[in-house]
Formats: sequence, structure tokens, C-alpha cells
Amino acid sequence: MANVPVYTFPGEYLKDFTKEVFMYFGIPEADATLAADVLALSDLRGIDSHGVARLHIYYEMLSGGRINPHPHLKIVREKPSTATVDGDNGLGLVVGPKANVIAMEKAEKVGSGWVSVCNTNHYGIAGYYVLQALERDLIGWAMTNTTKVVAPLWGRERMLGTNPIAIAFPGHEEPPIVIDFATSTAALGKVEIAQREKKPVPTGWCIDAEGKESTDADAIVKGGALLPLGSDREHGGHKGYCLAAMVDILSAVLSGANWGPFTPPFTLWQQAPSRSVGKGIGHFFGAMDIEGFIDKNEFKKQIDDWVRTFRQTKSAPGTPGPLIPGDPEREAEAIRKEKGIPLLQPVVDDLLDISKHTGISFKISQAN
Amino acid sequence: MANVPVYTFPGEYLKDFTKEVFMYFGIPEADATLAADVLALSDLRGIDSHGVARLHIYYEMLSGGRINPHPHLKIVREKPSTATVDGDNGLGLVVGPKANVIAMEKAEKVGSGWVSVCNTNHYGIAGYYVLQALERDLIGWAMTNTTKVVAPLWGRERMLGTNPIAIAFPGHEEPPIVIDFATSTAALGKVEIAQREKKPVPTGWCIDAEGKESTDADAIVKGGALLPLGSDREHGGHKGYCLAAMVDILSAVLSGANWGPFTPPFTLWQQAPSRSVGKGIGHFFGAMDIEGFIDKNEFKKQIDDWVRTFRQTKSAPGTPGPLIPGDPEREAEAIRKEKGIPLLQPVVDDLLDISKHTGISFKISQAN
Repeated sequence: MANVPVYTFPGEYLKDFTKEVFMYFGIPEADATLAADVLALSDLRGIDSHGVARLHIYYEMLSGGRINPHPHLKIVREKPSTATVDGDNGLGLVVGPKANVIAMEKAEKVGSGWVSVCNTNHYGIAGYYVLQALERDLIGWAMTNTTKVVAPLWGRERMLGTNPIAIAFPGHEEPPIVIDFATSTAALGKVEIAQREKKPVPTGWCIDAEGKESTDADAIVKGGALLPLGSDREHGGHKGYCLAAMVDILSAVLSGANWGPFTPPFTLWQQAPSRSVGKGIGHFFGAMDIEGFIDKNEFKKQIDDWVRTFRQTKSAPGTPGPLIPGDPEREAEAIRKEKGIPLLQPVVDDLLDISKHTGISFKISQAN
Repeated sequence: MANVPVYTFPGEYLKDFTKEVFMYFGIPEADATLAADVLALSDLRGIDSHGVARLHIYYEMLSGGRINPHPHLKIVREKPSTATVDGDNGLGLVVGPKANVIAMEKAEKVGSGWVSVCNTNHYGIAGYYVLQALERDLIGWAMTNTTKVVAPLWGRERMLGTNPIAIAFPGHEEPPIVIDFATSTAALGKVEIAQREKKPVPTGWCIDAEGKESTDADAIVKGGALLPLGSDREHGGHKGYCLAAMVDILSAVLSGANWGPFTPPFTLWQQAPSRSVGKGIGHFFGAMDIEGFIDKNEFKKQIDDWVRTFRQTKSAPGTPGPLIPGDPEREAEAIRKEKGIPLLQPVVDDLLDISKHTGISFKISQAN
């Protein structure tokens, strides 16, 4: 995105603004703080697509009355190590963290906790939830289904979301291993950037509306679809499709949410799905007490050894050598904690628009 | 493999032979039956690489005293929903099914059960374990780490196994959704077939000993490595690496087994790893009681709806349209139940060799 102005704001300034915006809609302060924390962490960890860049969408959904600002979470059903939670159509940024706490508390009681959530909305980055588990020295899992944009292998229409999976393991002296990825080959955001820049995308990312592999970003955005991780049959596209299906079923079929192509869009302008098969979208959280398997310190020392061993892998030519999952986000966090969060002009414009309509102060002069 | 003779044997004949071979080494009849069941299911479901084609390797390992024919499984540590099992260096085909039962029993008691296993050996197909869970109307999970053959993204040496993941969900009128795949882009077996046929392999499958992407099957087998699902950075190779790492850590670090490059080879001729960081290889089993989340019949009816919806996906050109995970294995099973198990000449030769050394009868005349 050459030549697009960038403004760098202190993370705390953006977080405070986010919190005020949520409170403007009557969301209680504690919930607004939680939701702002989730978005702020995304920006801090360099996942720009899921941070304040999305605040305008949340603003629109709240303005349009599409999200309940005062959800009462209900445990619909439970056993000692499992539960299903109804999120009462609250912000996923509020429902998600609360449901995750239920999973973690179960893990602390009986060794593991698994919570499926229905009647909820987009929950930010999956990584947030597994980092929460790490703070309690637990192994954390998080998944969510999302609006359809991915074609199953050999299909020519959007049937699944990018359905991310996250899991994290704590280290002792080394940083934790934090796995967090979408189950499509590429993100739609990258295709949209290519579309704006009038550039082609790599082969293996997408199909056009006729189901043919395409590198034409414009054709893809207008009626095409992303391909699942693996891209085609020869390169394991059926495996990425299996992963997306797994996330869809654990998050949505198990909880009674909308699954697959019936997942509601998280915008006011996209067409509603052809039918409803459940409530809202779905999440799936897990937590495991390491002590239920092995001595916690022994585990962490082995993770240190794992991390050091993999860092010492001989490098492929022209590469820096293998990373440890979570390295890129950790590096971004170190830089952004010090220097602030860089926002592109269109994102700043969105925040200024929210400011104009709500009267909540947002000033470009706060940028470094 | 044109021109290689194929012999088709009744599945029961192969299973009986397998059982006799295991009993020859003093494995108790019940355990030998279990182990033979696992191998037979692999052949029945069309996963030829993991069935009797591997019997000669098990035979060699037992002959060489590398596997304990009388393992006493021990629960090393447990909580209501978790456990670690020490497999006492038994056959993975015996240890795996028994540890899986522990996970399923925990699920029946507290909603979910998660069992990490150390001091074990190759356990056959991951799909066997999740099909066992389906018989109890549970959602089943199975993973295992395996001997190193995959390079992490940007690495140029073998550090991880093909580390499979399986999970299965029961349907009501429709067949279950059975997900079971290795986390590498392709299987080493496919590269070895290309090597024998002196054909190149597709790009994106492998690197050579210098870490460069290669299509030369011979160069790959001699010191190269498989690539993780996604192949390269642009196509999500970091995601496949993350999946393989997840399986490795859950199966081996959590249980106290050997992880990553230290996983012992399952042959007599491969070099032992440079150091030992645990006991044997590791498995990870999970089971979830659907009733801990949602009414079981409601879940199964939604799975039926999911299956029918995905079968109706519009097809990409030149394809039969999307499959449901488990379809290919189900089709193979239907055919092979009726017609028998086709074995290539080299596999038959291996079985004849076992017969010669053990005196257990195996006759080509039993082939159809």
C-alpha cells in the first residue's frame, strides 16, 4: 500500500477510544473494557485486520441494533469438563472471554474444560483466548466459525469461513509456543489489498465464480472464493477443507449455532443466508491443566528444549530458518509497545467517522 | 505401479495370519486380536500403507526384541478428565486401543477424556481410534507423532513426523464425518513410488538435502525432506508446520515421550536419534460426550443436514464436487468387504517371508 499515509497512535489511546465507543451503546464498563482489550491486543500483536480496523463494523452492528449490548450468558448444558454457553447475541469480544473463563475453571477443577458457544458474534483474534490460558499456566485452545468465504475442495461456491484454530503451550525460560492460524490458504484481506492495487494474487489462493483457479483479485472478490489450506487435491486441499469443517462443527453444530454457509455475515450490507439452522455464530474453547498429564515444570523445560532445538534447525537457502509459532506476533508486540500502533489513512478515517457520529473525541494530533 | 502383479485376499484370511504372527512372539491372544483388527481395518478402508504392508516391519521389530510383547500399561498421572499412560514399550496397535478406551471412559463419566501416551510405538491408522469412539456415540480425537521426515517451513532438515490428526462426528441417517490426515503436504510413500518408477513428484511436496524445492524423488528420499501442509510461505506452509508441532507436543511433550527429531525410527536399519528426550513415541487421544454439549439426537440430525448441504455444493469444473470427509475410505470399505484386499507382489513376498521364518501358513492360493 505505497503512498497511503500512516499514523502511529499510542496503544492506550486507541484502547480508551474503543472502550468509550462500546460504552456509548450502553455496554457496561467492565464489558467494554474487556472488548477493548481484545481489539487492542490484536493491534499490539500486529494482526491489523482484527484490531481497531474493525471498530467501524462493530459500531455499525451496534448502531443497527444487531448486537445485544447487555447479554446475559447462559450455560445451556454442562458436565464437569464440558459446557455449552448461549451468548445472548452479545459482542463476541465479551461473550468469548467469559466463555473461555468457564473452560479454564473447569480445567482447574477436573483437568480439562471444553466450552462450545452459540448465539455469539465475531470474537477478535483466536490468539487472545489462548494467551489468557497461558496466564493461568494452562494449555489453551480456541476456534470459531466465521462468515462463508472458502470453497470446500472441488466446490465452486463459498461454504465455510476462514475458521481459525489457536493453541498455546507455556515455556519456562523460553517464550510460549502460540499457534494461531486461519484454515484457508490466504486471508481475504490480502486479496482485497491486491484488488485495490490492481495486482494479481498467487495461484492456489482462490477460485473465480466459475470455480476455476484464478489470480484475478477482482474476479475473486466479486463472487469467487478462497481455497482451503493446501489449495488443490495434489497439495492437500482436502486437508484444509477437513480442518475448516472440524472448526465449523465443534464451534457451531455442537453449540447449536449457524454452521457452514448459514453463518450470518458480520456486516449490515451483506445478504442474509438462505436459511437459519441455529443461533448466531459459534466458538469452541478448550483448556487443559498440564498437571493432569505431567509435572508442569518438567513440561515447561521440555518446551524450552523443543524451542531451542527447532531454532537450531539448519536453514533453507534464502530464508532466516524456521520460526517458533508466535515469533512474528511477539516481535510486533515488542516494537508496538514502544512505538505505538500504525494505522492506515482509511482506518483513521473510520475512527474519525465514529467520533463525528458519537461525539467521542478522537484526534489525529494524538498520533506520534 | 503398472505391471506389478496384484493378489486379492479375503480380509479375514489376512487378519488371521496377522494375529498368528503376533502370537508367535508370545503376545497374548486378546492383544494379538486387537493389533490384527487395527491393521485389518486399515486395509479394509483402503489405506494400504498402514495395513499388512507394514506387518514385516512389526515382525522385524519383534524379532529384534525392540518391542515388549507383554506390556503392562500404567496410568502415570490422572485427573477426572485427563491421564498420561506409559505403554511399557508395547505394540502401538495394543497400547493405542487400550489408552483410547481410558479416554472414552472418562468422557462417559465427566463429559470428556484426554489421554497422552508415552513409551509406545506406531499405532496404525489414526482413523481406527475415532471410529471406536463413534461406536460409543462419542466424538473421537486421535493424534500421534512419528519418525522425522518433514522439515519445518524454512528448514532444510527432517525435524517432525507426518504427525496425523483424526476426529470423527456421528450422523443420524447419514454416515459419520471421519477426518483423518497427515500434516505433511504428501506422504513419503508417494515419493518412494515415484522414485521406483523414476518419475518426478509435483512441486511443493519436497525439498532436497540442500533445502531447495525439488521434484527429484531420488534426491528427496536420499537426504531431502517432505514439506508441511501448505508447502511454502505464500501457500501457508507455516500452518502445516504449526499443526505438526501441535501434534508433536500434545503426543510427546505432554506424555514424556521423544519429540521432534528425537523420535525413534520404526525400523532396525535407520540410525538412532542423536539423543533421547523421553520414552518411545507418543500418542494423544480425546473423546467428548455429545450430551455434555447438546442433545445427541439433535446433534446427529444437524450433522445429517451438514452432510447433505455440503454434498449439494456446486462443483468446480472437471471435479465430482466436494466429498464428505471419510467418503473415500467408506467406498473402499464397501468394495473390499465384498471383493477382498488387493496386495501388491512385494507385500505378498513380505508375508511369505514371515511365513517361511515363523512356520505360520500363508498361501497365495488363498487369493481370489
